[in-house]
Amino acid sequence: MDRLGEYSLLYDFYGQLLTEKQRKIYEEVRFGDLSLSEAAELYGVSRQGVHDMLHRVEKMLDSYEEKLGLVKQFREIRQKAGRIREICGEIDRVIGQTDETEEIIRLTEEIVES
Amino acid sequence: MDRLGEYSLLYDFYGQLLTEKQRKIYEEVRFGDLSLSEAAELYGVSRQGVHDMLHRVEKMLDSYEEKLGLVKQFREIRQKAGRIREICGEIDRVIGQTDETEEIIRLTEEIVES
Repeated sequence: MDRLGEYSLLYDFYGQLLTEKQRKIYEEVRFGDLSLSEAAELYGVSRQGVHDMLHRVEKMLDSYEEKLGLVKQFREIRQKAGRIREICGEIDRVIGQTDETEEIIRLTEEIVES
Repeated sequence: MDRLGEYSLLYDFYGQLLTEKQRKIYEEVRFGDLSLSEAAELYGVSRQGVHDMLHRVEKMLDSYEEKLGLVKQFREIRQKAGRIREICGEIDRVIGQTDETEEIIRLTEEIVES
């Protein structure tokens, strides 16, 4: 995954731990189309100030992941869910598709999305 | 769940976000058998200081849960995993116990424990 995609995922997990101002600027510059200079003007700070803030936010996101590992855990869960789906397919091939395997797949999807 | 059990669970999830000193004192007093006075003497702070610190730690744990909801999510996943286990039992009753349902149960247990 590219750097932006990686931080987008970290942000999904840990964005709530940032301040509202950090979230706002980070989103607008990284995921929106605001330039550093535009953000600087909009928020009344220097261009370098915005740059430093984005860098600080990414260091915080990295640090949260180092401590809590939610992204790593999410990937592992998604992989196991994929394997459960495969196994349900194998069961279906033996006994035909059932409500049971369908419910297992639905529940694992809910777990991945939670 | 009682208050201590609830904070024990919150601590399991968010303890890594506290400082080492906070973790040490919190564990020794709340889960170990150190009294407030003993902790105060050991760490060279007042008894009230220890009391305030424990209170501050619990406010932080509550605040992390409010923002990230990992304990709530864990309970939901555990419940869904229980339901998946039940369904596997239903499949087993139809086709006899199989490696497939056994693997599904093992994977869901790994998900709950991760």
